[in-house]
Amino acid sequence: MSVSEMKSSSSHNSLLSGSTLDFQLSNLFASGLDFARGIAASDFTSLPVNKDAQMIALGFGLPDPELFSIDDLRDAADKALRTDGLRALQYGGGSGMAQLPEWIRTIQAARRQIPCQPGELVLTHGSSQAMDLIARVFLNPGDEVWFERPTYFGAIKIFGLRGAVERDFPMDEDGLIVDAVQEELARRRRNGEPLPKLFYTIPNYQNPSGRSMTLARRQQLIHLAQQYHFLIVEDDAYGDLGFDGEMLPTLRQLCPSHVLYLNTFSKTIAPGFRVGWIMAPAEAVAKIREVKAEGANGGFVQEVLSRFLESIDYEAHIAHLKTHYQSRRDAMLEALERDFRALCEWTKPSGGFFVWLTLPSTTRLSQMMAFSEKMGVSFVPGTAFYVGDGGQNHIRLSFSLYPPEAITEGMKRLKQLIESVQP
Amino acid sequence: MSVSEMKSSSSHNSLLSGSTLDFQLSNLFASGLDFARGIAASDFTSLPVNKDAQMIALGFGLPDPELFSIDDLRDAADKALRTDGLRALQYGGGSGMAQLPEWIRTIQAARRQIPCQPGELVLTHGSSQAMDLIARVFLNPGDEVWFERPTYFGAIKIFGLRGAVERDFPMDEDGLIVDAVQEELARRRRNGEPLPKLFYTIPNYQNPSGRSMTLARRQQLIHLAQQYHFLIVEDDAYGDLGFDGEMLPTLRQLCPSHVLYLNTFSKTIAPGFRVGWIMAPAEAVAKIREVKAEGANGGFVQEVLSRFLESIDYEAHIAHLKTHYQSRRDAMLEALERDFRALCEWTKPSGGFFVWLTLPSTTRLSQMMAFSEKMGVSFVPGTAFYVGDGGQNHIRLSFSLYPPEAITEGMKRLKQLIESVQP
Repeated sequence: MSVSEMKSSSSHNSLLSGSTLDFQLSNLFASGLDFARGIAASDFTSLPVNKDAQMIALGFGLPDPELFSIDDLRDAADKALRTDGLRALQYGGGSGMAQLPEWIRTIQAARRQIPCQPGELVLTHGSSQAMDLIARVFLNPGDEVWFERPTYFGAIKIFGLRGAVERDFPMDEDGLIVDAVQEELARRRRNGEPLPKLFYTIPNYQNPSGRSMTLARRQQLIHLAQQYHFLIVEDDAYGDLGFDGEMLPTLRQLCPSHVLYLNTFSKTIAPGFRVGWIMAPAEAVAKIREVKAEGANGGFVQEVLSRFLESIDYEAHIAHLKTHYQSRRDAMLEALERDFRALCEWTKPSGGFFVWLTLPSTTRLSQMMAFSEKMGVSFVPGTAFYVGDGGQNHIRLSFSLYPPEAITEGMKRLKQLIESVQP
Repeated sequence: MSVSEMKSSSSHNSLLSGSTLDFQLSNLFASGLDFARGIAASDFTSLPVNKDAQMIALGFGLPDPELFSIDDLRDAADKALRTDGLRALQYGGGSGMAQLPEWIRTIQAARRQIPCQPGELVLTHGSSQAMDLIARVFLNPGDEVWFERPTYFGAIKIFGLRGAVERDFPMDEDGLIVDAVQEELARRRRNGEPLPKLFYTIPNYQNPSGRSMTLARRQQLIHLAQQYHFLIVEDDAYGDLGFDGEMLPTLRQLCPSHVLYLNTFSKTIAPGFRVGWIMAPAEAVAKIREVKAEGANGGFVQEVLSRFLESIDYEAHIAHLKTHYQSRRDAMLEALERDFRALCEWTKPSGGFFVWLTLPSTTRLSQMMAFSEKMGVSFVPGTAFYVGDGGQNHIRLSFSLYPPEAITEGMKRLKQLIESVQP
């Protein structure tokens, strides 16, 4: 386009100037956003899960909607709007805006012995937004975030989006092999190479492995954070759902100064409220609040949850969830013991939603995925949980969504599927 | 700390190693975050607004809670949980997750003749998050965002947080003086200086000035966006609340390719749901969705609003709001005409929530603020709405929150206050 053409197009008569033709909106996108990595949790939000359908979906880590206390929630919503509705719906919100954070602090202190001052807590739209806010406050593109291998795909996605350099470290039955982390940290320091800023871990009933980190390993990881000055992002989404075994102290309890602790009501009340939280040193929380442009979570949701929590016995509620999910875990482990011994190895979670299955090395995973629908059973391929290549030999199974009988049936189908893709 | 000390501190017996003493969490903060600029909307969310108190708060642009359709919302919440509650509370949500966006597209097409394909819409947690997402998708630190002067302080804050270079351009009674923008753009191009990426404007019943941009100015601004390849961020939060005068076409209608259009239910239904939206080219919406780490807005809120919208006559609802707010605007303008003619100048908004008052040049604004509580009337100082220095001679008044009699009384106090701080 010539300058004279440009000039003539600057008359205001026509809204479609010639130069519009050169316009590429994508030229205006910010640089440094890496959209390619990982899988967003939101990629799953539009997936219809029909429990009556022929497919038994052992892939997705969905809580069982039968455990949503729908009647109590209806009462809570009604009460919220009836008693303090006008304030709850206004900017600034009603009493729930102060009470919900108070409930969270009370619950965490009572159940997990996690002390927390008011300035050390910020509510988020689920754990996903919590990670995103942490990424924005702490990471410049090129900063390093370390993970367990395997790890939650949403975390790989969110930290990756911020341009983080990501690296994962192996696990065994005791959780993260902290020795491997220690070795790499020592090597980096010796060589003057950059240290990580964050280490993301799910110490309890990990997603996807179902494993828990032992107390000794927790202490060792904290010691490294102290020595090498990085922060631990402790995702405790499943921490309240322990069936058997000891409830181990959270990393936040062990060392509040070096831990950004995440939790959520998505697994214990319902995902549809999108209420999670971060507990962290006040200095970090203050910055996170500033980066959270929309301010506090909505007053309506906070009011409803606050009324709900004051109306129920939370301990009894959690106990009910545990019994419910434990029978499903048991059904899956029984099926594995009975039918998979010659075929696979698997983890034995003492809580949470997940079992991590190691397939025969001869398994063709892509073929297995292709046949999944026909066989009426689905799963998440292990590759989704790796920062780099790998995971082709694994799948994640979730026992949270179906009753024991359906799980038994699903596992029968899974066995046939695995056998059918052996050479 | 010596290497030998480091070694000894690496035993796992003690969690408090010596090196912890050197640890400064703030050393780990990302660089390039500018927290200093502007005022966050969330700074106001904890402010108690007590309409019965002695203070008449003409400062904050709060909708009148008496206009929240609390009974219809109670019914909607009950219906949402009763009919589709389990799905609404699950990941992925129920039917409201698809219906609410559909409602928004229908309303905008019917009321404002804004066409919008499904892929051109994304819901946000209010307009604040919408701006934040746009900032992240389009801005690298140092990129320029231009504004009207005065402009909404939240926008200054949010774009500033991303490290944008901000600049504002004067307005007159016809809205933004686009000639001034054109001159600067031409100068930049001549000199090979960087052009802005975004121009943020509130064309209808602007916050804080109450002014609207004329059609000719709208066309001129769009023409500049086309010629100089920047995007217009059109914040239409008050667009549905026009009392008199013509309803002008939105910038999005005039040129969808160059406009990121923002709107919200915060002024028309209630702020407590935190539901806003962006309408933009599909390519931009796709990127914005990826950056919105938490995925869709919560299924519960979407279900409730969807049920609410299907149960009411939205046109009648908006007509009711308009009558209500118009009588308040009239009360404020009458008080100004009656008592302020010798003292001040002011804008005459044909919609929205705000009047922009120009004080006598001899006014000591800081003194006026100091006496505000004693006099029982408050306002927002003009300085909050300027990107740089300036605004000392202005205040923003809101007529949205109080009934006409209270506004009349508030204006009486304001007059006394202004007179009391003249030399």
